[in-house]
Amino acid sequence: MANAYQTMETAELDAQIALLEQEAERLRAQGLSLDMARGKPSQEQTDLSRGMLDCVDATCDLTDEGLAADNYGVPDGLPSARRLAAELLQTDSANVLVIGSSSLNLMYDLVCHAYTHGIAGNEPWCHQGEVKFLCPSPGYDRHFRVTEHFGITNVPVAMGVDGPDMDEVERLVASDASIKGIWCVPKYANPTGVTYSDDVVRRLAALEPAAPDFRIFWDNAYMVHDLYDEGDELLNIFDALAEAGHDDMAYVFGSTAKVTFPSSGMAFVASSAANMREVRDAFAVMRVSPEKISQLAHVRFLKDAAGVRAHMRKHAAIVRPRFELVEQKLTDGLGGLDCATWTHPRGGYFVSFDGPEGSAKAIVALAAELGVKLTGAGATWPYGKDPKDTNIRIAPTYPSLDELSAALDVFVLAVKLVSARLARSER
Amino acid sequence: MANAYQTMETAELDAQIALLEQEAERLRAQGLSLDMARGKPSQEQTDLSRGMLDCVDATCDLTDEGLAADNYGVPDGLPSARRLAAELLQTDSANVLVIGSSSLNLMYDLVCHAYTHGIAGNEPWCHQGEVKFLCPSPGYDRHFRVTEHFGITNVPVAMGVDGPDMDEVERLVASDASIKGIWCVPKYANPTGVTYSDDVVRRLAALEPAAPDFRIFWDNAYMVHDLYDEGDELLNIFDALAEAGHDDMAYVFGSTAKVTFPSSGMAFVASSAANMREVRDAFAVMRVSPEKISQLAHVRFLKDAAGVRAHMRKHAAIVRPRFELVEQKLTDGLGGLDCATWTHPRGGYFVSFDGPEGSAKAIVALAAELGVKLTGAGATWPYGKDPKDTNIRIAPTYPSLDELSAALDVFVLAVKLVSARLARSER
Repeated sequence: MANAYQTMETAELDAQIALLEQEAERLRAQGLSLDMARGKPSQEQTDLSRGMLDCVDATCDLTDEGLAADNYGVPDGLPSARRLAAELLQTDSANVLVIGSSSLNLMYDLVCHAYTHGIAGNEPWCHQGEVKFLCPSPGYDRHFRVTEHFGITNVPVAMGVDGPDMDEVERLVASDASIKGIWCVPKYANPTGVTYSDDVVRRLAALEPAAPDFRIFWDNAYMVHDLYDEGDELLNIFDALAEAGHDDMAYVFGSTAKVTFPSSGMAFVASSAANMREVRDAFAVMRVSPEKISQLAHVRFLKDAAGVRAHMRKHAAIVRPRFELVEQKLTDGLGGLDCATWTHPRGGYFVSFDGPEGSAKAIVALAAELGVKLTGAGATWPYGKDPKDTNIRIAPTYPSLDELSAALDVFVLAVKLVSARLARSER
Repeated sequence: MANAYQTMETAELDAQIALLEQEAERLRAQGLSLDMARGKPSQEQTDLSRGMLDCVDATCDLTDEGLAADNYGVPDGLPSARRLAAELLQTDSANVLVIGSSSLNLMYDLVCHAYTHGIAGNEPWCHQGEVKFLCPSPGYDRHFRVTEHFGITNVPVAMGVDGPDMDEVERLVASDASIKGIWCVPKYANPTGVTYSDDVVRRLAALEPAAPDFRIFWDNAYMVHDLYDEGDELLNIFDALAEAGHDDMAYVFGSTAKVTFPSSGMAFVASSAANMREVRDAFAVMRVSPEKISQLAHVRFLKDAAGVRAHMRKHAAIVRPRFELVEQKLTDGLGGLDCATWTHPRGGYFVSFDGPEGSAKAIVALAAELGVKLTGAGATWPYGKDPKDTNIRIAPTYPSLDELSAALDVFVLAVKLVSARLARSER
């Protein structure tokens, strides 16, 4: 379908472009320096967790169920921390490890373990020739970088409104034994905000991969990051795997990075009992024992899943107006032009935006010229290559509402001007 | 030289054995359950750092030189944490990363990086066929496990009173390009307590390895762990490397694991500028950013190297009597029998003990029967294989003085009885 600029008479289009260029000059003259690139909580959000810093002090009990938090040992994490993580992931705490502050680090370690030692007795990936991973795209650049780092071929599959294109995923994993895994952010996906439908979760759990060492990397990063009281519901992957008789097929990750303090949260991983035996053995060589003082502070502050949800409602009150401002500014500025689509997430950290084909790099560059930093165009695709150059990730949480409003004005102008110029160049 | 039991008349030896067995029965009847196996600080020691838990609270400034500690970013670690680590390691803070709480984890990651990606443009170790590491023995079992985990051949070299046998080390690394590294604990080595002499440090720094991707893994774990005001002096490895023109040849590690809280300390790594560029690039894929709240607490508590040294004097006051008790009990119990030697460290966490050939496993087993747990015999050698079965690692810090005293009585009895039985079996 043609957009408003494409259907304009040339004279009118040229007049439009001139007007938009005037507007661009006006915005440039403001000398803005704004950042909509980073999936970071704002200061207001991190301040919500300051209370945690008082939960462990010099005089308090430093044990958890009789285990010392202030010494070596307890390699699986404190019992109460594992119980909290298990409650959030909806699984048995016996199969949960709470280790470090970065779930990305745990994902890296498990890809690396498969690469150097192999999974469940299979040949290490480093000795299997070409190895591939499925990358629902647009997706999370840091996932893709992990597999790329090991020379694994990242294969994009389309992200739909209810998750990855499952026809394609089923076809690929069934026919190609070199496909060893798929990256998934199943709830409020980065960057689309999509939550996988029950059907998609069941089909993923029921996959019949040609590779015996195929694993779903289930990064449930935004499981408690609802913007509204009524959050999206994600089917429990452990239940779906059990139904399909595929308990060993997924590693499940989560963290409190965007619940308490980014980089100083708790990271966790869960899987089947068999997988976790293997993970424990691998981790026993990598690490001595986890940061249990931080775990103790977390469990005393957050208490349980209900406590986490109550805390996340405070985050939502700060974040929701930012997402609503994105929706309003994009609708007001671009509605009716038919030159762009964007997602309307009910949680998570991002809005995914698509402009006309061949526009994304130019929009990001123009916005940068006008003082607004966006995530690099293409970052949401493997190797940074968005095949149609349409996708831009909008990260609205870090700026203040005023800054965000100014940044969105620049963004809308950039989208319009680039779209109009593209339409002109097609003549 | 024959020991006292070997030179006894057989009748006298049999009488001795009978007496020692009576004594063993008496000790067994006490039903002891004591642990001299673990290199862990005691509760009294970890309590010294409780004040750190008050250094960051809900109301305080959470920035360090203008950088937020409570959000993502600052991948190299907080400036003040890097400065503290650099002051301890005696190097430029520009070449120091402070990341996570486990220096073993950093060592693992660098061995793994070399294995999967290669060092400085060289072929990854996983594609180089047999790869070997030199393991000064007795040494630290967890070092040896890291290289063993990657199928690297651990080659023991003798530890002397001033460090590894450098004639052997020089000969091996010059002649064998498959030797890629050496594990070193250069000050108060685990388990001997030896501090490398200036000459050994200079010879290590001046090594001319056949392998271009040879690296010294310099784990300065006990750099501030003096028992006496006059501590051992270790030559600065960075200076020695610079003198030899070999700046890239070592990775240097340290942590505050046994300064503040084990598993909740700060870990750090330093090397040449060129090496650190490569390390940063590798770590950028592995991790998001480090636990900066913990770093902030550390620097506010410890302040600088002088602050660390003052804090370590408090540790020494607790630990020193334990080491002195080991020395006294071993001297009183075994002096003059010529059946054992042990080290007399002036810092660190261990005493290294050697009994008669073929005695260590039996001594550890007998002590366990009598209620005293020791580090498994052989653990201090690659693959757990002590070729002469003589070495036992004594870890005196964790038990109370009373417990340690009782445990040492059992140990001394076990050494005597096993030595006497060995002498009898030789007849």
